[in-house]
Amino acid sequence: MTLVKERPETVEEQAILAKKAAKKLSALTTEDKNEALHIIADELIQDYKYILEANREDLKNGKEKGFEEAYMDRLALSKERIEDFANGLREVAKLSDPTGDILSEWTLENGLNVKTVRVPLGVIGMIYEARPNVTADATGLALKSGNAIVLKGGSSAIFSNKAIVEVMHRALEKTKIPKEAVQFIASTEREATKQLFTMKEHIDVLIPRGGGSLIRAVVNNATVPVLETGVGNCHLYFDKDADVNKALSILINAKTDRPAVCNAAETLLVHKDWLKENHQVLQETLEKNNIQIHGDDRIVQLMKGAAPANESDWENEYLSLAIAIRVVDSLDEAVDHIDQYGTKHSEAIITENKETAEAFMRLVDAAALYHNASTRFTDGGALGFGAEIGISTQKLHARGPMGLPALTTVKYMMLGNGQIR
Amino acid sequence: MTLVKERPETVEEQAILAKKAAKKLSALTTEDKNEALHIIADELIQDYKYILEANREDLKNGKEKGFEEAYMDRLALSKERIEDFANGLREVAKLSDPTGDILSEWTLENGLNVKTVRVPLGVIGMIYEARPNVTADATGLALKSGNAIVLKGGSSAIFSNKAIVEVMHRALEKTKIPKEAVQFIASTEREATKQLFTMKEHIDVLIPRGGGSLIRAVVNNATVPVLETGVGNCHLYFDKDADVNKALSILINAKTDRPAVCNAAETLLVHKDWLKENHQVLQETLEKNNIQIHGDDRIVQLMKGAAPANESDWENEYLSLAIAIRVVDSLDEAVDHIDQYGTKHSEAIITENKETAEAFMRLVDAAALYHNASTRFTDGGALGFGAEIGISTQKLHARGPMGLPALTTVKYMMLGNGQIR
Repeated sequence: MTLVKERPETVEEQAILAKKAAKKLSALTTEDKNEALHIIADELIQDYKYILEANREDLKNGKEKGFEEAYMDRLALSKERIEDFANGLREVAKLSDPTGDILSEWTLENGLNVKTVRVPLGVIGMIYEARPNVTADATGLALKSGNAIVLKGGSSAIFSNKAIVEVMHRALEKTKIPKEAVQFIASTEREATKQLFTMKEHIDVLIPRGGGSLIRAVVNNATVPVLETGVGNCHLYFDKDADVNKALSILINAKTDRPAVCNAAETLLVHKDWLKENHQVLQETLEKNNIQIHGDDRIVQLMKGAAPANESDWENEYLSLAIAIRVVDSLDEAVDHIDQYGTKHSEAIITENKETAEAFMRLVDAAALYHNASTRFTDGGALGFGAEIGISTQKLHARGPMGLPALTTVKYMMLGNGQIR
Repeated sequence: MTLVKERPETVEEQAILAKKAAKKLSALTTEDKNEALHIIADELIQDYKYILEANREDLKNGKEKGFEEAYMDRLALSKERIEDFANGLREVAKLSDPTGDILSEWTLENGLNVKTVRVPLGVIGMIYEARPNVTADATGLALKSGNAIVLKGGSSAIFSNKAIVEVMHRALEKTKIPKEAVQFIASTEREATKQLFTMKEHIDVLIPRGGGSLIRAVVNNATVPVLETGVGNCHLYFDKDADVNKALSILINAKTDRPAVCNAAETLLVHKDWLKENHQVLQETLEKNNIQIHGDDRIVQLMKGAAPANESDWENEYLSLAIAIRVVDSLDEAVDHIDQYGTKHSEAIITENKETAEAFMRLVDAAALYHNASTRFTDGGALGFGAEIGISTQKLHARGPMGLPALTTVKYMMLGNGQIR
């Protein structure tokens, strides 16, 4: 056994403390957990000045390092944003607690009673980038589902994250949840993150939240199981039987509503017959909405102002008002393109032909398939789940928006009176 | 795109063929798939002599290499064993097809219809050791759940496995399932297995079946998601309130019914108060059943013939008529021991005290928890699932015995008429 000091210093010691706390946490009632979430929310609001002070330190460092504006904006906190954290926790308190749910129950002929019961995963390792809101949001979801959490945030938000955790720890002392259930890794060294990758004994799942390179680093190096979340290189396919109005309105929504999020559209695949009829109105619509076009040869010839698309245009998310457009001769060609470049997030077909739509939805391998609707609905809030811990683009365990049940597993509980086989 | 030759030669080419076949397979009806399973079963029986001939080659090589008897027994085929393969396939045909099941469905206020639908995972990579039955069993479960399969069996069964696959391929030509849906990696080089570890684009999940070292190699090196199966270092805990008859009968069943399987008991944790009263009858019972004892200090002092247990006795499965016994002073000590040495498979408490049993079942982290019953029930057949692809000891995706649903994922299918956000 590793010795655990009063003030833990190593990442492993912290993970061990989290594991112990998780056992205590698993015995608490839903009411205990909800009460704790409200107390944390109260303290965050009460101590918002302390958090803002720490945040100023991060902003100062960010400015010195010359971070770009969008990045600084995600990093910056305000009284309102901290109130949002608190409200988020109160919303999580309202969600139904999945743990303890009996998913199935039956009795064997010999009288052995078999139940599968939802239980917490144990310890969640959260690896994330600059957004300090993840510190509070992920903690709320973890605690509500009976899990301890080890937080490893980006170094650029280190002061803000530390302050938020300090406030949460002070709050937890007034609750039945042991404060050791929330561990914050203060080291900004890469080594600390790497240690989490292989700590299978103490950490039950790693959840990376951030850009593609962070997610790839975790997926490719971790031996702890990973819940892979959300790079979204999403496609719209305008079939030859697409209704023009639906197609254009969905395109504009999926591209421009919030271009920087993962469920925004990045590539338009368009059937040659549809394009022949509608290229002018497509061009006008894109222009009117200030959307920059990167097209294949046929698009460049047909649409003025279209830049030639290269491999990177098909592969990457723009996360801005730009779109890649490729002309296809068939549904199969569209499906092949998505197979090659898609990230298994959200893919939409626009068509009035039900059979074509069904074939698309069967052939395309992604978490969410849309027929005549915008990809923007792949979102826990929009689908009515309440808060989400991320959007899974993997196939095992959880797919699509992940609510509280994604943070649980099951136990077979067998009640007997001496049954043998 | 990689060029695909008529006769695939590289592992990657085979995986690509499997992926393509999986798309075709996903369009077939349950009837098509069941019919194919029966045709494979027929052909296996018809061509049993061809398979036995190949098996003799493996047995000859195994003898030359001096494999031990139990290993040779697992390797050896007979007409009856091949009939068992065929019957297994017919049993799988009887199981309900999980794909296409609608798991949930709701409609948003804007009219967007949301469904979560069970779909095949895609391509399953099966990595296994000497048992040729896995070749037929795993193929049956994969095809029934709409998945293609890439088989990588142990080199000692290479001739048998190859012959079984050849027969299955001939059978598939008479069915609607493309024969490319079953790929067999004929190379016996380690490099071939390693390639499967990282082929994330073409393979959706790896399932290792075999000993601890094979499973660890896959878990620690694969970036393709893994379904970790079954090393079972299972414990029985005799609480101070354990009924003597139940305790002893469960012990004998869990230890001796089939000592070599993963749900057999390997360690007995016994409360000091229970032992004080019952050590004589425990000793007599173990002796009568020819069970060798490895004990901690207290056991060695108390029970004659007990060998002193070392770290390896607590850590490893005996898979034979031996048991490690440790005396504990409390439930917590028993739980701590299981935390340290257990493999999260099956753990049992024997007690007449309901509260103690509930605490045990909450605190111990394992797929299956038993109160007053033998660990031997952790088995798809015993629980009424029909065939199983393995017993999951991981927490994500599937836990415990894995039937057909473990080989599926979900898609969100959204049907709209132009909805935007």
